[in-house]
Amino acid sequence: MDRSSSSSECIGIVGLGLIGGSIGLDLKAMGKKVIGLTHKTANANRAKERGIVEVASTNPSILNDCSMVIIALPLSLLLNPSQELINSLPKNAVITDVGSVKTPILKIWRNLHPRFIASHPMAGTHEAGIEAGQKNLFKGKPWIATPELTTDQEALEKVHQLALSLGCRWVTSKAELHDEAVSLISHLPVFVSAALLSMVAATESADLLELTKALASTGFADITRIGGGNPDLGTSMAKYNNEAILNSFEKYRVYFDKFEEKIRSKQWEKINIELQKNQMSRPSFIQDFSDFNQSNQN
Amino acid sequence: MDRSSSSSECIGIVGLGLIGGSIGLDLKAMGKKVIGLTHKTANANRAKERGIVEVASTNPSILNDCSMVIIALPLSLLLNPSQELINSLPKNAVITDVGSVKTPILKIWRNLHPRFIASHPMAGTHEAGIEAGQKNLFKGKPWIATPELTTDQEALEKVHQLALSLGCRWVTSKAELHDEAVSLISHLPVFVSAALLSMVAATESADLLELTKALASTGFADITRIGGGNPDLGTSMAKYNNEAILNSFEKYRVYFDKFEEKIRSKQWEKINIELQKNQMSRPSFIQDFSDFNQSNQN
Repeated sequence: MDRSSSSSECIGIVGLGLIGGSIGLDLKAMGKKVIGLTHKTANANRAKERGIVEVASTNPSILNDCSMVIIALPLSLLLNPSQELINSLPKNAVITDVGSVKTPILKIWRNLHPRFIASHPMAGTHEAGIEAGQKNLFKGKPWIATPELTTDQEALEKVHQLALSLGCRWVTSKAELHDEAVSLISHLPVFVSAALLSMVAATESADLLELTKALASTGFADITRIGGGNPDLGTSMAKYNNEAILNSFEKYRVYFDKFEEKIRSKQWEKINIELQKNQMSRPSFIQDFSDFNQSNQN
Repeated sequence: MDRSSSSSECIGIVGLGLIGGSIGLDLKAMGKKVIGLTHKTANANRAKERGIVEVASTNPSILNDCSMVIIALPLSLLLNPSQELINSLPKNAVITDVGSVKTPILKIWRNLHPRFIASHPMAGTHEAGIEAGQKNLFKGKPWIATPELTTDQEALEKVHQLALSLGCRWVTSKAELHDEAVSLISHLPVFVSAALLSMVAATESADLLELTKALASTGFADITRIGGGNPDLGTSMAKYNNEAILNSFEKYRVYFDKFEEKIRSKQWEKINIELQKNQMSRPSFIQDFSDFNQSNQN
């Protein structure tokens, strides 16, 4: 079979920012041959220096011998891929992406390549760019794929193995359900967080603004991390998961208003009960990543 | 002077939960004699086992020889102290608290003790209770005091030295300004975070709820940490900083609505610009705690 030819160990990564760079660092550490495609020569050189890739180029033909290509581009480029990039993808290779919205990506890519697997590793920091990639970013994190009836099962299994090799928990779902879920736990939260940062930063009194800066501690750092992150990523979420995120805005407002109303009407016992429910529910949303890593090693 | 008598090294802590317990662990590690007052014999015993205090009791008279007493009780108890507790505080001792709202505390305590210093160490985790205290919780964190014209300056300086010995950054302000600032960066954020958790946990579709739990990653963990924390603390913030927090709810809604309106009307460039502003402003609110510790050690 062509598919298990001598080039089977050569993995291409398109885009060497936070996600692409982090995947490259881990794959290289496993001894894989990693090839990078980026849009700037300076980034290609820096990616080699940082040990993200073995070979890097700005010329898409560098992907011609890859058995797998991970397209780690921003959503806007994933949804408008250049013809040159499409032409460079070997027909027998497994192609996957890392975009945080799956329905529009499948709509385009299911027709562009027969072995395309829509997927989304759920990991990140507030950094972006060629310096952002880091080792072990994915350990214990979810990696979700959204296969369809027509999806190539062998290609899906290869992406599954990739995710496991990076230490991820593997999850699959329908694309629409994925987009709704991430609007709740990832996309809306960016704006919940951003609105808080915008509000505090707009404080008019200089004394008060200075004091907020002096007093902001770990709680404020945690809650504003995603709202103070990559602006292009946040904008893409709003743009490409538009309907789901707007539904989530409406749902959120209901719960925000309920808390305000209970505070205004001094219903302390009811507030306490709601906060108790949150304290009890939160652990079911929070994976203990360290434990997961531990059990994975056993 | 009585004030520098042989008992000067004996520090009392009232309440041995997250804050009181953490202060005790650090002071004990510095070789100070720490005495704990708690409401349960089991907690007194456990505090000694954990090395939080040298001596602990449920009897307030244990504080009689202390030169400083840190009252680390919940706000509700700070604002309604028992007569027995008040009577047990030595008249020459420096008395301070750790409550997250300062105006109502000063209103009560300025008349209860001549050497009372209203203060607030800005540190925490989502834990509470006798097991919650941890070493080095305060390193690099702000510790704010809110002195008045009538405040005993020598007592203020002693609390200043206490805060420095725990590794804190020392800040002072008027009580009203403190309460306004913490409503913006600490009290409102609890409910911004809690509303998100309440909303996601109330998801009706079982499939969708299960998927949100499988996909929630570090971003969701960070943004829900303070909303899934101690219910009594959140309720107290709403109750005792009521006016400031309600003002903050109204301000927040303006910025939340602006984002929603921009998303609804597809103003991607404007969203991107606002997120860029946030990305640039966030570092001014986030202390680099590790650097601070470093420079403190030099």
